[in-house]
Amino acid sequence: MKFANRNVQLGENVRLGKNVSIGDNTTIYDNVIIEDNAIICNNCVIGEPGRAYYYQDGSYIQPETVIGAGALIRSHNIIYAGSTFGENFTTGHRVTVRENSHFGRDCQAGTLTDIQGNVVFGDYCKMHSNVHICEFSTIGDYVFIYPYTVFTNDARPPSNSYKGPTIGDYSIITVHCIVLPEVQIGKNCLVGANSVVNKDMPDFSFAVGSPAKIVRDVRELGGGGQYPWMYNFERGMPWQGIGFEEWSKK
Amino acid sequence: MKFANRNVQLGENVRLGKNVSIGDNTTIYDNVIIEDNAIICNNCVIGEPGRAYYYQDGSYIQPETVIGAGALIRSHNIIYAGSTFGENFTTGHRVTVRENSHFGRDCQAGTLTDIQGNVVFGDYCKMHSNVHICEFSTIGDYVFIYPYTVFTNDARPPSNSYKGPTIGDYSIITVHCIVLPEVQIGKNCLVGANSVVNKDMPDFSFAVGSPAKIVRDVRELGGGGQYPWMYNFERGMPWQGIGFEEWSKK
Amino acid sequence: MKFANRNVQLGENVRLGKNVSIGDNTTIYDNVIIEDNAIICNNCVIGEPGRAYYYQDGSYIQPETVIGAGALIRSHNIIYAGSTFGENFTTGHRVTVRENSHFGRDCQAGTLTDIQGNVVFGDYCKMHSNVHICEFSTIGDYVFIYPYTVFTNDARPPSNSYKGPTIGDYSIITVHCIVLPEVQIGKNCLVGANSVVNKDMPDFSFAVGSPAKIVRDVRELGGGGQYPWMYNFERGMPWQGIGFEEWSKK
Repeated sequence: MKFANRNVQLGENVRLGKNVSIGDNTTIYDNVIIEDNAIICNNCVIGEPGRAYYYQDGSYIQPETVIGAGALIRSHNIIYAGSTFGENFTTGHRVTVRENSHFGRDCQAGTLTDIQGNVVFGDYCKMHSNVHICEFSTIGDYVFIYPYTVFTNDARPPSNSYKGPTIGDYSIITVHCIVLPEVQIGKNCLVGANSVVNKDMPDFSFAVGSPAKIVRDVRELGGGGQYPWMYNFERGMPWQGIGFEEWSKK
Repeated sequence: MKFANRNVQLGENVRLGKNVSIGDNTTIYDNVIIEDNAIICNNCVIGEPGRAYYYQDGSYIQPETVIGAGALIRSHNIIYAGSTFGENFTTGHRVTVRENSHFGRDCQAGTLTDIQGNVVFGDYCKMHSNVHICEFSTIGDYVFIYPYTVFTNDARPPSNSYKGPTIGDYSIITVHCIVLPEVQIGKNCLVGANSVVNKDMPDFSFAVGSPAKIVRDVRELGGGGQYPWMYNFERGMPWQGIGFEEWSKK
Repeated sequence: MKFANRNVQLGENVRLGKNVSIGDNTTIYDNVIIEDNAIICNNCVIGEPGRAYYYQDGSYIQPETVIGAGALIRSHNIIYAGSTFGENFTTGHRVTVRENSHFGRDCQAGTLTDIQGNVVFGDYCKMHSNVHICEFSTIGDYVFIYPYTVFTNDARPPSNSYKGPTIGDYSIITVHCIVLPEVQIGKNCLVGANSVVNKDMPDFSFAVGSPAKIVRDVRELGGGGQYPWMYNFERGMPWQGIGFEEWSKK
């Protein structure tokens, strides 16, 4: 059953590293690079072309798409041409990533997540299911984003002025939140469930509500001093096994 | 790679116009009409039959489905039998449109949008990603609906009484909103993020909150007089190039 | 067109009951049991293996998956190995069910619903579109959950302590709600739109808001005494045709 190579289509100039697996019914368009040990599961589209591909007569140029080493792209993903992914990119199912988005290493995108294109992610960012990242968002390193959270970029819709949010390292945006255009969330912030963030948040702030109000410093939150979370959580992080304190001395 | 006609299935009485393209792994069921220059991308289902098809022995009658000229249906869409789409219908990925829904011309449905059936849309309506339109909704012309907004039709769930909302021309429903059953939103209205609209809104009203309160006339909103938006935005609209004022004199 | 057996793959030890139908482009992995009269539509994956399958060399053991008699699994569903479904399980499109989830009889999961695994559902539970059920949730019998509602299990994210909510029999969670970790919602409760439930709810309570406040007993709600709903709604319920009162005497 595993990687039987049924109904797989590879375009021109597709370069596969060592030990790459490609699932059934998957289409890889032109100019896609898939690095060593990556796994692309069934029914995926990698290198989906932009709109011009369907209309122009031969003049469309397909940009390069790079899936880094060690990726696990689960079934029914659609990844557009022109996006790049660092090592160990992992997804759930039915993820969509539009064009010109760039991910650092060890990022995750949960089932149904929708990345709208022209986005920059740092390293070790983890999106849970059904997150919506608008165009022109900038996300730092070690950022967690939880289900049904939406980033927006159009302050007076509909307009032609798109400015996405910026999220600092180590920040956490929980479920069902909205981050409004141009908002800058600092480092080590926490946004509570169902919040609408319409103002900048300084480092270490905890905000909640619609519109969100800063109610505390995350270091003063109860529950055993969970935040900053890096001292209490290490699964899948570069400090796994040695702890954040030790790791950050390096 | 483009439209190689691999694993494409066409049912009986499928009528394709001139210059129609159909992507790999796409299934077109019986009695589907696809008009000139339409593009159906990979892994789509067009004319998905209703439940009775799977159970009745030969007595099921498949209604006609019409995809208007110039459509661009991106990959992994599922469109039920009995729905009709005016010219230039455009979608993102993984859109679902259930039965007996009718769209005017130049409508758009973003990735993951879920149209539940028995819905009427006017012309030039634009839904962004992951919008949920319940059965029996009525949407005018030039309406914008933003991500994760949900229309509902059952005031006392679960019941057998379904009455959807009605949205007037030129109105904007922003992200993460809920429009409750039977609510009538007038023309040129604006609903702010994360709102629950439980009462009718007169023309030109701006409402926000949960439950939403009318806080202003949209014409009094700051930010340079963006609203009514038609004077400030023309991309994809019939007044593109000449402006709304000139166009509306015709 | 119907069940033409094109591009269908069956793994080893797949046991199909009488009169089972399997749609085109569907993959059934090893050790899946599909009982009598079940219908699996096009482009589904049944018995999707866990992560270890893709990495281990032969040592991965695929758990048994059981799709009960009379199921209707619509197109583009992904159901993981190790989950079991009682009779008459019905889905919309693009539903994902992760591993080790167990459903009673006559449950429904709407389009885009995302069940994260290790969940227990009773009988006759109905999820509408785009519901997100986190790991370790426990749901009773006759529970209705409406679109864009999210259950969560991590009180201080990110952590390693996952505790899902518990929902009692006959309760209704409406649209765009969040149920926070460990929350216990009693029997016959009703949660209003856009609520965040952060505290336990006793039987028969109606709560609304963010955070949700208990505002009334559901039996005192206006609108003609709709609640408890079982006396007013019987479609698809075991008391259909005889009424809840008569049925509950048995």
